[in-house]
Amino acid sequence: MNDFRYYNPTTIIFGKGTIAKLDELVKKKDKILLLYGSGSIKKNGVYDQVMEALGKRKVLEFGGIEPNPDYATLMKAVDIVQKKEVDFLLAVGGGSVIDGTKFISIASEYDGNPWHIITKGAAKDCKKAVPFGTVLTLPATGSEFNKGSVISRREKRVKFSFQSDLVFPKFSILDPENTYSLPIKQVRNGLVDAFVHIIEQYLTYPVDAIVQDRQAEALLLALIETAPAAMQTDPLSYDGRANYMWAASNALNTLIGSGVPQDWATHNIGHEITALYGLDHAETLAAVLPWLMWYKRDQKQAKLLQYGQRVFDIHEGTDSERVDRAIEATAQFFHSLGMPTALSAYKIDAEEAATIIGRRLAKREWKAGEHKDIGPEDAANILRLSR
Amino acid sequence: MNDFRYYNPTTIIFGKGTIAKLDELVKKKDKILLLYGSGSIKKNGVYDQVMEALGKRKVLEFGGIEPNPDYATLMKAVDIVQKKEVDFLLAVGGGSVIDGTKFISIASEYDGNPWHIITKGAAKDCKKAVPFGTVLTLPATGSEFNKGSVISRREKRVKFSFQSDLVFPKFSILDPENTYSLPIKQVRNGLVDAFVHIIEQYLTYPVDAIVQDRQAEALLLALIETAPAAMQTDPLSYDGRANYMWAASNALNTLIGSGVPQDWATHNIGHEITALYGLDHAETLAAVLPWLMWYKRDQKQAKLLQYGQRVFDIHEGTDSERVDRAIEATAQFFHSLGMPTALSAYKIDAEEAATIIGRRLAKREWKAGEHKDIGPEDAANILRLSR
Repeated sequence: MNDFRYYNPTTIIFGKGTIAKLDELVKKKDKILLLYGSGSIKKNGVYDQVMEALGKRKVLEFGGIEPNPDYATLMKAVDIVQKKEVDFLLAVGGGSVIDGTKFISIASEYDGNPWHIITKGAAKDCKKAVPFGTVLTLPATGSEFNKGSVISRREKRVKFSFQSDLVFPKFSILDPENTYSLPIKQVRNGLVDAFVHIIEQYLTYPVDAIVQDRQAEALLLALIETAPAAMQTDPLSYDGRANYMWAASNALNTLIGSGVPQDWATHNIGHEITALYGLDHAETLAAVLPWLMWYKRDQKQAKLLQYGQRVFDIHEGTDSERVDRAIEATAQFFHSLGMPTALSAYKIDAEEAATIIGRRLAKREWKAGEHKDIGPEDAANILRLSR
Repeated sequence: MNDFRYYNPTTIIFGKGTIAKLDELVKKKDKILLLYGSGSIKKNGVYDQVMEALGKRKVLEFGGIEPNPDYATLMKAVDIVQKKEVDFLLAVGGGSVIDGTKFISIASEYDGNPWHIITKGAAKDCKKAVPFGTVLTLPATGSEFNKGSVISRREKRVKFSFQSDLVFPKFSILDPENTYSLPIKQVRNGLVDAFVHIIEQYLTYPVDAIVQDRQAEALLLALIETAPAAMQTDPLSYDGRANYMWAASNALNTLIGSGVPQDWATHNIGHEITALYGLDHAETLAAVLPWLMWYKRDQKQAKLLQYGQRVFDIHEGTDSERVDRAIEATAQFFHSLGMPTALSAYKIDAEEAATIIGRRLAKREWKAGEHKDIGPEDAANILRLSR
């Protein structure tokens, strides 16, 4: 097992009707900026529940945080927080709204160039951030239960991430019923995103971290088992949504990733696809992961065999056959959710994507993977397979 | 899945040589009270490492916190904290030292009768506590990663517990090498204690909490798998101790118990045995659990079958046979560690213990179990089986 530091002070409030707890969680005197996305919360009743719980508190609003939240959008909110002296931020939405709020929280208290928080590691120089809580409506990224944030800048066609202990949510309210109005495609995306988060922290090489390995497999098994109930719409399944929601939060609360090597190459390559072609984040992950597994099958063999055995019950055959079957089972799980695993499904030419993305990554001298042995040319080769 | 609140802000610092991090974790100006047990830390080098890391800080000492920490002992430390205006407590030891430090931490800042913190729920009226960190030397209770504490009062022959958000350790330092000098009996006890903590949060009845069930099974599997390496002494196994240490911390960090029914009858009955006969805590658990499983086999059947299948790979036979085998496998796991599963192993007359403990519990109108359907007479019946 590798050495590690684990810290996660976010309070999780889980269950039916828990938005009402906002009244206990937010100070009466706080001036609040309510942050949200496209406005679906105004149609599905979530906004009304939030406003009722906040009662007479002074609430400003900032809507329109887009999927893959944009730096320019977020800077407008930073301006409001600073000018209106906002005390508390409340993010109501999914990973994009929460990631965006994390940036707004820390950038509002930073004196330097806010872009450096994301690009030059300035987050570590920050001393404070505006406190915030979240009401999760789209389980997927785990952002409600960690200190990470991914921000895009459309004018530069880039997507970067930052981390800081300052941007743990003070609380996150997880009511599975708040997911009921989600388009089913979003549930599918959330399941895939959570699955790949676990894989990125697990499918590397063994370091005799038995606890973390069993915990990661536990979450993969839970996601696979709960997926049909989570995807079911008629009738909706409370427990299906609850297990999906809680699995997705646990997938990236950093516990299973503590003390083990991590990969994140699938995410890195996926971010490039989103930046170029606008695919949903989860769609990019499913279009990369099986091919990355295939491409790195030798380096990842020990873990691929363990994964096949413990998650998909694959015990028979040669090592190579079992690895094949583990990769196939992964793709089949995605297909069972209606999620394609090739760029061709989006009419994207894999060769073209490989060339452009390989070139973009080369410019940044990008390296990824648990051994830092996946370079731009490897990314291009992986993308070429996704056809 | 049941509704829940999950909150755990303790920072875990895990790995080799991590005691040195005390210098970053403790304020330079703090006056520290160093708390420990029998003094083994002065023989095994842990004390020296701690003092070196604390450097020139002002450090007072309070040793002699006994296993099953005694109220009278702890009140002497409270007196020191108050009179000497101690700023920070540092617990160096196992669950007893840490549980004791939690009480000292909160009692030192409480104006009322400190005994009421434990017996009358006064912990919830407390507003502050002296901050503290821990250096764990005996993985077992999980106290280093939660807000619970169990305190004994020998003059009254009682043992009670309390919980408070105020007594989460600020940090816990987990260096597997700090367990190297433990007598092997303590490692055995720690493995059993952690195992039973998981069982108490798992072996109840299904509430469709797939995530928590898989996570609990993950920790049980990890403990069983790592036990031989953890018990090995020649040579000592770093990873064996690391997995044992991390599994024990995760067993009671309250994550797997969130959103599910819990039992704790085995612990309650075990506490009575310790209070009466002075057995080690883990010895009492192993002498109760298999018999409690047997006695409650109908109410717990669904979970016993799931446990047998997922943890011990028991798939064949009638329901009743599979339940038998799951209980047997539990006892066999304990025996494999050299841990007896009957009171007779300690020359305790089961009939006598049953009568006395049944009577003591009846006086308190004790009820336990996930359905609150285990009463004093049931406890006596369970103990009668442990012969």
